[in-house]
Amino acid sequence: MKSNSKLPQIVVIGAGFGGLSFCKSFPKGKAHITLVDRQNHHLFQPLLYQLATAGLTEADIAQPIRSIFQNRREDIDVLMEEVTKIDLEKKMVSFKARCCLPFDYLVLAFGGQTSYFGNSEWAKYATGLKSLDDALKIRRQLLMAYELAESETDKARKQELMTTVVVGAGPTGVELAGAFAELAHTVLNKDFTMIDPAMARVVLVQAGPRVLPTMPEDLSAKAEIQLKELGVEIMLNTRVKNLAANEVELLMMGENMTTKIRAGNIVWAAGVSANSLTKSLGADLDNAGRIKVTPFLTLPKNDNVYAIGDIVSLTDPKGQVVPGVSPAALQMGEYVAKSICKEIDSLNNLKDSKKTEKPNKPKKPFVYFDKGSMATIGRSRAVAVMGKLKMHGFIAWMAWLGVHLIFLVGMRNRLSVFFSWVYSYFTYKRGARIITGVSEAEQMMPQGLKTQNAMPEKILNT
Amino acid sequence: MKSNSKLPQIVVIGAGFGGLSFCKSFPKGKAHITLVDRQNHHLFQPLLYQLATAGLTEADIAQPIRSIFQNRREDIDVLMEEVTKIDLEKKMVSFKARCCLPFDYLVLAFGGQTSYFGNSEWAKYATGLKSLDDALKIRRQLLMAYELAESETDKARKQELMTTVVVGAGPTGVELAGAFAELAHTVLNKDFTMIDPAMARVVLVQAGPRVLPTMPEDLSAKAEIQLKELGVEIMLNTRVKNLAANEVELLMMGENMTTKIRAGNIVWAAGVSANSLTKSLGADLDNAGRIKVTPFLTLPKNDNVYAIGDIVSLTDPKGQVVPGVSPAALQMGEYVAKSICKEIDSLNNLKDSKKTEKPNKPKKPFVYFDKGSMATIGRSRAVAVMGKLKMHGFIAWMAWLGVHLIFLVGMRNRLSVFFSWVYSYFTYKRGARIITGVSEAEQMMPQGLKTQNAMPEKILNT
Repeated sequence: MKSNSKLPQIVVIGAGFGGLSFCKSFPKGKAHITLVDRQNHHLFQPLLYQLATAGLTEADIAQPIRSIFQNRREDIDVLMEEVTKIDLEKKMVSFKARCCLPFDYLVLAFGGQTSYFGNSEWAKYATGLKSLDDALKIRRQLLMAYELAESETDKARKQELMTTVVVGAGPTGVELAGAFAELAHTVLNKDFTMIDPAMARVVLVQAGPRVLPTMPEDLSAKAEIQLKELGVEIMLNTRVKNLAANEVELLMMGENMTTKIRAGNIVWAAGVSANSLTKSLGADLDNAGRIKVTPFLTLPKNDNVYAIGDIVSLTDPKGQVVPGVSPAALQMGEYVAKSICKEIDSLNNLKDSKKTEKPNKPKKPFVYFDKGSMATIGRSRAVAVMGKLKMHGFIAWMAWLGVHLIFLVGMRNRLSVFFSWVYSYFTYKRGARIITGVSEAEQMMPQGLKTQNAMPEKILNT
Repeated sequence: MKSNSKLPQIVVIGAGFGGLSFCKSFPKGKAHITLVDRQNHHLFQPLLYQLATAGLTEADIAQPIRSIFQNRREDIDVLMEEVTKIDLEKKMVSFKARCCLPFDYLVLAFGGQTSYFGNSEWAKYATGLKSLDDALKIRRQLLMAYELAESETDKARKQELMTTVVVGAGPTGVELAGAFAELAHTVLNKDFTMIDPAMARVVLVQAGPRVLPTMPEDLSAKAEIQLKELGVEIMLNTRVKNLAANEVELLMMGENMTTKIRAGNIVWAAGVSANSLTKSLGADLDNAGRIKVTPFLTLPKNDNVYAIGDIVSLTDPKGQVVPGVSPAALQMGEYVAKSICKEIDSLNNLKDSKKTEKPNKPKKPFVYFDKGSMATIGRSRAVAVMGKLKMHGFIAWMAWLGVHLIFLVGMRNRLSVFFSWVYSYFTYKRGARIITGVSEAEQMMPQGLKTQNAMPEKILNT
């Protein structure tokens, strides 16, 4: 048990990639860290879509935060709590269910949340994909829709149940759409007898002119081809005008006309904004609520408060706009750990040796190192760019698998995920097609998803 | 797709061990089977306690029913539905969300449900363990209680949060208690800093004079020793008098006095009764609502209606009371499949060849083959009896592991479970310590489980 109450107190809010990377990079013994998160687990977000599409289970992609820092119990406390207020003047963080925690340094790493561009009522009709519970909800909706479709006698209703719409064609949207199509065409059609695989529709809606807009144009084109091979319908230059229960209204901007699609399953992968906590900080924010930080990742008025990860809006000295991706969060976490560490060292030196040198040498600003980006589209299908190297198809897919296995936290998860992937690859099966939480969810289910009162023809006719 | 509408229609209600075994044993082409279950998955109940105690994940112990019968799509339909009414006269089954299904033969295999001995309001305070959702709820409660205990400053409240009471010391209760104790003493104490492992209490309450009452007495004694080694407190001859939020009132029958235990987590493993659907059948029931069937497993007044598994009350011709365990359900399923098959054959023979022989030769009654029973208590600890062979400790544990792996449905599940077990064995870690569904569950949480408004001393003092 720690006792040195003279150590500087660091509070880290959020145990995503940024928070985790900060804590891991920060050396033992120099400070006392409290790592706060609403959840008890770190979530490996890049694989969350595989939970939503029944490829992996929650234990594969989540790791208890406490167990990650088992060996740092002397200097890192983990607190499962929800932050309600950050008082920068009093240097105090307040929580939902208890009083407050003082800090000397604060690291804000609480990440993004699904943004419906001002239409928060849409959340009822289209689930975002940010948490385990989101993913489990999407899995439940998808599998339930197929169960209902199997026994539905009304053709239009059946088509509706077998239609999935994914809004937004960034990496998450593309990966979801690909996985949905694969699930429908190669896996589920083996399980069901009354579902005609040709009826399963997956529609990917994108406001811009191409999928994966942050990637090079030729890879977007490759991705589109691969998605189409899987049967995904891509609607470009198309914006969501309205959402209702099981219905998307779309504005096709090219033709300037609207259309409606009825779908049993609507997933929102279009927008991410910073957690609304950023609004209370008195710092300038961009449109998505992200904090405009200094080149040193601090708040302009509070140099003891750092922000990292998806809540940061920054163009680095090389002119790169730092993207909201996990490698950026990891790098920022490391940078801030070094930065705070240096400051503590120089303060200690000043105190101990009564030297007269300045405590703060001029700092180096944060520079983002772009390792490239990748998106998987399905079995043996992916696109990837690393520096000047562009890949697509099987090679890109192998690269994607490798990178994601390496970065997955925890040896157990790594082995288990590897095992699930190998199994699915050779058997075309998915192990996690389990529906849970139906009774709890029933009240929340859109009216349209409830079944009709008819017995499947087939069963009656046999 | 099947078309022969002349085939006899068999409706099977429930895809537990009995229903599954019936369907698997029934030969292709002789009848058309509709297998109905409320869930989309078959649940491997004997390992459900490992989901509740964070050792395995839901995909490990559940298998989609449709995928089990992928190769029987021609003669087996799977329907995810809830049965609301069984009309034996009209030979018709009705469902919650749709109209009815006619049958020539009906196989009732819908299993048991948690019984609170007439105190159904206790369900709020003590979760039973019959479904995936039950197990996920217990896991959430347990892990949340430890999270709250970690930051609790009030000593009494902390003790309460760290106390688990398991009511009932049959195999499920014993396995749960052992796993809870192991989780508390070997796993969680590595994750938490403010929890004193010595404070974690697991109390196992049993109304009778010994644990595992259906096992030989010496094995009960061995089980008690092994439980105590793990730190489980055993209260024999003790009955639950009342339950409230986080509180069990117990009547100790030996001393004829009552005591109260406050506990953050109360699990009910004391009673199982047949699903209440049995009441509507017009057949005689025993105290637990189980159907008193004929020696041929049919309802006394309806020889085309069979009952198998936990809903059956039967003493077989050898004088054995058939227990509510999975091997019995498996054997009954096989027996009924043969029985219906024979009857269909003889009816067909009669029709086809216009023979004059009697359609029904005298049937052989069902005889239960007792393969023995076993219960695991923890790492390297178990008891098992197979015929005259009795085992305990490591050997019994190995036998338990082997038997459960062999009977687990689905090669993927088998490998994944094996992997999880080997991993846990060597690392003392559990992979599935993930809390999900907290926000949905928050409303349902007993008042007492909400946290106090204090910051952990330790964090404040450092």
